[in-house]
Amino acid sequence: MENLIYVVPALGILGLIVMAFKSAWVNNQPKGEETMVELSHHIAKGAMAFLKSEWKVLFYFVVIAGLILAWSGTLVENSSPVIAVSFVIGAFLSAFAGFIGMRIATKANVRTTEAAKGSLKQALKVSFTGGSVMGLGVAGLAVLGMGSLFIVFYNVYVLSTNGNVNGLEMEKALEVLAGFSLGAESIALFARVGGGIYTKAADVGADLVGKVEAGIPEDDVRNPATIADNVGDNVGDVAGMGADLFGSYVATILASMVLGREIVSNDQMGGIAPILLPLVIAGLGLTFSIIGTLFVKIKNEEDSVQAALNKGNWISIILTVAASYFLIDFMLPEGELVMLRNESYTFTKMGIFGAVFIGLVVGALMSAITEYYTAMGRRPVNSIIKRSSTGHATNIIGGLSVGMESTGLPILVLASGIYASFLSAGLYGVAIAAAGMMATTAMQLAIDAFGPIADNAGGIAEMSGCDKKVRERTDILDAVGNTTAATGKGFAIASAALTALALFAAYVGLAGINSIDIYKADVLAGLFVGGMIPFIFSSLAIAAVGRAAMDMVNEVRRQFREIPGIMEYKTKPDYSKCVEISTKASIREMIAPGAIALLVPIIIGFSFGPEVLGGSLAGITVSGVLMGIFQNNAGGAWDNAKKSFEKGVEVNGKMEYKGSEPHKASITGDTVGDPFKDTSGPSMNILIKLTSIVSLIIAPHISNHDGHSMAKENMDEKTIKIEAVDQKKKVEEAMLIE
Amino acid sequence: MENLIYVVPALGILGLIVMAFKSAWVNNQPKGEETMVELSHHIAKGAMAFLKSEWKVLFYFVVIAGLILAWSGTLVENSSPVIAVSFVIGAFLSAFAGFIGMRIATKANVRTTEAAKGSLKQALKVSFTGGSVMGLGVAGLAVLGMGSLFIVFYNVYVLSTNGNVNGLEMEKALEVLAGFSLGAESIALFARVGGGIYTKAADVGADLVGKVEAGIPEDDVRNPATIADNVGDNVGDVAGMGADLFGSYVATILASMVLGREIVSNDQMGGIAPILLPLVIAGLGLTFSIIGTLFVKIKNEEDSVQAALNKGNWISIILTVAASYFLIDFMLPEGELVMLRNESYTFTKMGIFGAVFIGLVVGALMSAITEYYTAMGRRPVNSIIKRSSTGHATNIIGGLSVGMESTGLPILVLASGIYASFLSAGLYGVAIAAAGMMATTAMQLAIDAFGPIADNAGGIAEMSGCDKKVRERTDILDAVGNTTAATGKGFAIASAALTALALFAAYVGLAGINSIDIYKADVLAGLFVGGMIPFIFSSLAIAAVGRAAMDMVNEVRRQFREIPGIMEYKTKPDYSKCVEISTKASIREMIAPGAIALLVPIIIGFSFGPEVLGGSLAGITVSGVLMGIFQNNAGGAWDNAKKSFEKGVEVNGKMEYKGSEPHKASITGDTVGDPFKDTSGPSMNILIKLTSIVSLIIAPHISNHDGHSMAKENMDEKTIKIEAVDQKKKVEEAMLIE
Repeated sequence: MENLIYVVPALGILGLIVMAFKSAWVNNQPKGEETMVELSHHIAKGAMAFLKSEWKVLFYFVVIAGLILAWSGTLVENSSPVIAVSFVIGAFLSAFAGFIGMRIATKANVRTTEAAKGSLKQALKVSFTGGSVMGLGVAGLAVLGMGSLFIVFYNVYVLSTNGNVNGLEMEKALEVLAGFSLGAESIALFARVGGGIYTKAADVGADLVGKVEAGIPEDDVRNPATIADNVGDNVGDVAGMGADLFGSYVATILASMVLGREIVSNDQMGGIAPILLPLVIAGLGLTFSIIGTLFVKIKNEEDSVQAALNKGNWISIILTVAASYFLIDFMLPEGELVMLRNESYTFTKMGIFGAVFIGLVVGALMSAITEYYTAMGRRPVNSIIKRSSTGHATNIIGGLSVGMESTGLPILVLASGIYASFLSAGLYGVAIAAAGMMATTAMQLAIDAFGPIADNAGGIAEMSGCDKKVRERTDILDAVGNTTAATGKGFAIASAALTALALFAAYVGLAGINSIDIYKADVLAGLFVGGMIPFIFSSLAIAAVGRAAMDMVNEVRRQFREIPGIMEYKTKPDYSKCVEISTKASIREMIAPGAIALLVPIIIGFSFGPEVLGGSLAGITVSGVLMGIFQNNAGGAWDNAKKSFEKGVEVNGKMEYKGSEPHKASITGDTVGDPFKDTSGPSMNILIKLTSIVSLIIAPHISNHDGHSMAKENMDEKTIKIEAVDQKKKVEEAMLIE
Repeated sequence: MENLIYVVPALGILGLIVMAFKSAWVNNQPKGEETMVELSHHIAKGAMAFLKSEWKVLFYFVVIAGLILAWSGTLVENSSPVIAVSFVIGAFLSAFAGFIGMRIATKANVRTTEAAKGSLKQALKVSFTGGSVMGLGVAGLAVLGMGSLFIVFYNVYVLSTNGNVNGLEMEKALEVLAGFSLGAESIALFARVGGGIYTKAADVGADLVGKVEAGIPEDDVRNPATIADNVGDNVGDVAGMGADLFGSYVATILASMVLGREIVSNDQMGGIAPILLPLVIAGLGLTFSIIGTLFVKIKNEEDSVQAALNKGNWISIILTVAASYFLIDFMLPEGELVMLRNESYTFTKMGIFGAVFIGLVVGALMSAITEYYTAMGRRPVNSIIKRSSTGHATNIIGGLSVGMESTGLPILVLASGIYASFLSAGLYGVAIAAAGMMATTAMQLAIDAFGPIADNAGGIAEMSGCDKKVRERTDILDAVGNTTAATGKGFAIASAALTALALFAAYVGLAGINSIDIYKADVLAGLFVGGMIPFIFSSLAIAAVGRAAMDMVNEVRRQFREIPGIMEYKTKPDYSKCVEISTKASIREMIAPGAIALLVPIIIGFSFGPEVLGGSLAGITVSGVLMGIFQNNAGGAWDNAKKSFEKGVEVNGKMEYKGSEPHKASITGDTVGDPFKDTSGPSMNILIKLTSIVSLIIAPHISNHDGHSMAKENMDEKTIKIEAVDQKKKVEEAMLIE
């Protein structure tokens, strides 16, 4: 059993090796003629420029936060300055995963365009392989990093001290490991929020002046902001989404490990198995994701791309579920299990498997519901289309109404999931459900990252004036990409919610409290304040896009005015200036929301204690999930209402097309929806996870029990009890032998 | 002390007598020439048509709900079928208050127009006296109703059984009295949600076809929907707001009484004083509101109307505070007080006064913050104005961002208020803070109702072609009315929030639980589901306005098409048809949201028990308050951004006026904001209060303690203890005498 600990990083390395092969394959694909290469260079250069600026800020952030962490690690018994080391490693690996994703995406895009000249089959292969590199990179680095660090900390804090694997020594090892998760999520903050601001500033800026004022089509080379727009797709949808899921992936594993430490069975300690289980499930999920990617292919032009993606996805999910069954059966002890913090609630190892299963079902349902609310041809989008016929305002009202309505089913699914997984295996069940859902992150991300690659490929085809057939093929991929982007957001918010709850449960244990009673006035006040934070965060993110887009508009107008010959294709616009504006704005505008996410739990925790902080976390999570779903789905629905007009759609018995009044109204909705679905909505994920992780990190500092957790005390009692039983058994055995 | 019980209804009657005099005075004012009278007749007829349709549905609702209540009252020990009687009385009085308000508003409007021909001073006097009638009617009926019913139930359940005023007998009396509050709030649901849908369907419908398509001004007699629009102002802003505050007023008094029953001092039972206190404060507030109204007057045309209103408001508040000090000092026992449910937390009678004071401060701050976020010339509205220059979409983004941001300060004020009033006097403090805030409801409502009267007066001036000077004077009043409408909404949501929390605390006691622990998975799931309800409710309300407005648009288009001569003033449009459409739509569309508010707590409570329901209530309250503030303020800010353009405003160094592109963008924002600020936003108040009251009513049925509340058990213990002390004292005294 103990040897499984070494299998985990090995599986991570396996993932990275496969990634390297896939990456090399993409690199070896033809990249087309010079114009295409040149455009892709602009995009790649822009993307790297963003990463470099981001890294510069990140460097200072990591150094300062690392020093604070190292110092604070010396203050309480069950932490250590080493937490700063895992923080830096977590931040580095997350940034590195982002780098891998951006690099492959900016290589795969032009190669997909080139492949689309041949066939849809080949175009899918190139773009999806590009996506797989991202997926395997993220999951591989996460599994390798978490697995290796755990081995080190386990040896240092537990084995070398002859410590108890379920005791305080392990708690310390996991508290130090939490630094890794904090590092990863901090980078996610920069990537998701900064990336979200970047991509929409560029997009809105490019559209407002290019499409509306100058009347040139989207992705036109004459538009100075068009490269920034394409860079934005990579920055937001590839790097941002990647860092987001990297963070969720790591945080769920961590939370399950923290809770797993407390599992004991009736007559023996649970041992290391429940702590190790989430790591091994992640390793398995990574492996089966590799297998799943092999099934994503089509044979000819008519085959459904969506079906191919679904097939790969379901294969990896089903294999992971099946393997988890045998794994859990093998690893975990027989008989009744309990968690130390709540001994009255018992479960069995099959309950734990049930929780894994529930997690996967929740993930699948959340994706399906999101698709319903944002897909073309369904009631929600149709209702917006109908409302567009009476103008801008009714289109907006329709979208807001759809977005609000769309919170209903996901919350019911989530609430049922929480309850059902708790019934299956207590709080450990809630965490392990999240871990189950996240197991196939590699596959999920491959599907997510494929979208923006296809989108970029279409942009390059347009800008380089490729044959119409090429654009048609990339459009097919892009349309599928839009669906996967929407469902991916549903998955991401669900995973963030479950992750936050798992962290919340882990936090309560480490903070030495055993209830969060909102009947207490201060806790209730905390719940209110927490609930308000996502509104403020969203407001800041939306306003930031507005300001940054204004900067972009002014720059594009200036170039049209001051650089002669752009419109006649005689002079090239200054793409890099627009890239710079988006980059600077995104870094600048990210500070305020980022500070809120990091500081609110610290201020509340140290001022009002752990229970009030717990109330605030609940408020942030509930309100953040609601605002996330509301904004994501409203944005997605507005987008597809607009796209429906571009295709042509029947409204009140009359066909309406591009350029009609209803279409113009739908553009307003889409523009409002852009920051909703790509900036503030997805950044809710980061907000709820980051505040939970920060709380988990500060938990020992604000604990009611002077650095000792409640669970620890129960544990000591239990240990004595079990040791007594062991002693008795030994005596009995000895007597029998006699 | 006991005699104070009879003072309460007497003060209610005093309020009603003053109201009758004021009403008669308004009636005796001249009502102008025939056109004006005719228009006001149309409005009055439309308003009564709405009331009649509403009452028809209400009748069935009240009968069915009453029967269910009567039946359920027989099921548990500490309730009674009599609860149905107080329910019916509560519903009747609330409906009657609405009737009084509508009647006086539709009489005062035309008389204000006529008075405006003379002077601003007289116009203010007529319109504000009209508002006062509404305010005094609502407060008078509430105080009279609650006071008289309490006397009856006190006699029947407590005195006649020789029961304990702090014991189970009083609990039963209050549980039965809760029916009154449920009745009042049910009517508020119909009035606020139905009225909100009515007014915006008419408004949006009238604007979309009239202003936009036909190009005729607002309030033009040729627009078939214009009467419906003016009726809507009365239905939504007078009757809706009145019923809303009637509900809050009654519910806070009730919740304070329920909590007051549990107050005991160190060596004696608290007696009836803490139960009676909220009733007496309400009576005092009513009396001082009458005095306050005397100060609302101006001397000449240049005087500030706003200042006059503020003066009257502050006089009534300050007098009420001062009187409360002496009242509390007189009524309540000396020494340390505790609540039975939490004996470790002690406070004194001055703490209770502190809570009253905190309530008034919270109310004042909430109004001030709301004004900041929605007033012309301040940063929030200016930011929307600036964003309007880049189009419809950026205007919308700006408004949404302002609305979300505007949740920050109010929540901090509310959270601090909750915490501070709890520190002052425990949970009773939270309830009594709400009661303090609501004490001057009569004055608040007078100010609120004055707005729509002035608005209507302006409409009649416009439609009947009065002199320009008249419209200018009514416009001055109307502008003040817009501000008071916004601040009134801030007050209403704050009062709803505090009311809901007071009810929440009362609920916990009656439900026999002593904590609501969101660390439990089922309670947390309840919190999530509760948090989602306001989103669904808002979505339904917004969508309802959209559908109803569509019906209105089609009808107006039909009339323009089929009735020849409307445009040439030759034929009169069919006003009543539009009134009918708004009426029907509002009744029809109210059913789904109403059913949610009534059924959700029942379903959750009976399926998952009292603690999960408690979690859900907290979720509904937090999320409802946030959505309420967000929607009210976004709507108010959009409205004033539009109004700024109508006056002329500088954008990017250039003056922009009515008809400019930025102005058109601002109209889009205003249209989106209309259902936000007048339908879904204010209906959040009802949602959070109604779900809390329903929970309070069903609390004994879902109690963990088989119909006995926790407090009761504590009470019994305490009674025995105190009786023992008394016994000992008596023995000692007897010994001393000897």
